[in-house]
Amino acid sequence: MDLKSYLKDRAAEVDAALDRFLPAAKEQPGTIHEAMRYSVFAGGKRLRPILCLAAAEACGGDPESAMPPACALELLHTYSLVHDDLPCMDDDDLRRGRPTCHKVYGEGMAVLTGDALLTEAFLILAETPPAKRYPASSYIADLALAGGSTGMIGGQVMDLEGEGKELSKAQLVKIHKAKTAALLTSSIRLGAMTANATEAKLESLTAFGQALGLAFQVIDDILDVTQSTEKLGKTAGKDEAVDKATYPSIIGLEKSRKEAAKLTKQAMAALEPFGKKALRLRQIAEYLLERDY
Amino acid sequence: MDLKSYLKDRAAEVDAALDRFLPAAKEQPGTIHEAMRYSVFAGGKRLRPILCLAAAEACGGDPESAMPPACALELLHTYSLVHDDLPCMDDDDLRRGRPTCHKVYGEGMAVLTGDALLTEAFLILAETPPAKRYPASSYIADLALAGGSTGMIGGQVMDLEGEGKELSKAQLVKIHKAKTAALLTSSIRLGAMTANATEAKLESLTAFGQALGLAFQVIDDILDVTQSTEKLGKTAGKDEAVDKATYPSIIGLEKSRKEAAKLTKQAMAALEPFGKKALRLRQIAEYLLERDY
Repeated sequence: MDLKSYLKDRAAEVDAALDRFLPAAKEQPGTIHEAMRYSVFAGGKRLRPILCLAAAEACGGDPESAMPPACALELLHTYSLVHDDLPCMDDDDLRRGRPTCHKVYGEGMAVLTGDALLTEAFLILAETPPAKRYPASSYIADLALAGGSTGMIGGQVMDLEGEGKELSKAQLVKIHKAKTAALLTSSIRLGAMTANATEAKLESLTAFGQALGLAFQVIDDILDVTQSTEKLGKTAGKDEAVDKATYPSIIGLEKSRKEAAKLTKQAMAALEPFGKKALRLRQIAEYLLERDY
Repeated sequence: MDLKSYLKDRAAEVDAALDRFLPAAKEQPGTIHEAMRYSVFAGGKRLRPILCLAAAEACGGDPESAMPPACALELLHTYSLVHDDLPCMDDDDLRRGRPTCHKVYGEGMAVLTGDALLTEAFLILAETPPAKRYPASSYIADLALAGGSTGMIGGQVMDLEGEGKELSKAQLVKIHKAKTAALLTSSIRLGAMTANATEAKLESLTAFGQALGLAFQVIDDILDVTQSTEKLGKTAGKDEAVDKATYPSIIGLEKSRKEAAKLTKQAMAALEPFGKKALRLRQIAEYLLERDY
């Protein structure tokens, strides 16, 4: 199967699982369950869940066992977008080409929708079958650390505080590690854990995730400069408008492209011990680098 | 030991544990860890953690094992207050007599602070030692259900949607069950679970928690009408100002007082099977009813 079909099939499986896990829209109170589903089923690529499933595969595991963490990861990612779009944060009206949650349901409801998605992520994660090396609590701790005040949320704080300031490349790397790479890395780690991966394998995949996560963010920064709003499905040129430090603004566009390529090479190297089993992870990393930036 | 000393000692133990569990204020990024600590160490009575510890005691358990869920409960409660106080929600400037989180740190940071407290709650909960009948995942699921879209968050949604509308007593009970009783009940259940409580005991304590939670909310409604802002440590008369349905507004002050007394009696009856071991739970329920309303 080519990568495109693989990604499409896996995304459809994740969507079906999300539909099963999420409370029905008619469950009381209906508004919050509608708003949760509106935000989750908005045409996302399901990158984090697919990485989780592919990591389970790379470690010889069963993708079915990796489905609860895969869905938890997508809910956690979605909650962060809902809160990030709020007027008191990035103040964005468009997300994936559609009005953002607070534009449709109001600000108070968008705060609660994000809260509910985050809570639901842990509820679903609790359904992950424990592996021999990894009890249920290790999944919870991994995701909570990646999404918490020293991980993703910490990255958003540094991002907020860095607006309008001159940042060094080192500071920017720190922000991106926390804001993006932490959750991508956890996506891969959780998948590997459901496959009862050895410590050595988990370490290799952690290195893969960190390099991939940084590459992903560098490319996102580049696309914000080079692409149209229509093509991005979200407001383009946003970073410059709020005077946010980005790779292109600090080291220039050409060097940013080279940085992305270098990071992806690092990511590939980390996959070597897995041989053919890491085919999909390798292809996904290539696909992320070959986006039209 | 009299109840007052017991409550004071237990609150001090919980505060010490929270201080150990929470990231230090100097940990990067400092602002969010400061804001988390500002919100958590604001003079709260630690009612939920103390109920959790007392429930463990009632089931013959070790309060030390119940400390992680006790702290997780307080963080979850605190996050709900931080988000509830936001301008797009209840828009409150004062909480426990001090400026609310968003007044001090700004709205964006208050959203992130709440998010971080909720995430930290699950991180800490993952440290609960599993009991024979209750694996780690059962604690996570219990708290996530109590705090989620059909529990506490659902209650807040119904509350928001009910503003300015005439509600029946049945509708109000439904809101209070979700908004307040669910988390109080989970506080008691989690403590009992750390003590490896039998199913029958867990059921009795669930009934106790539900009755106590409703009584607590009725009394809160009454106090909002009868007490001064100074005495409450938060803005009084708030419910009436936003035309929110409350027990006093639906059934009147006298009937509300009787309702609170009746619910507390129900709560007491649920404790009968525990005999002397439930001394503290019984005293706490009495103390909550005997607040000066």
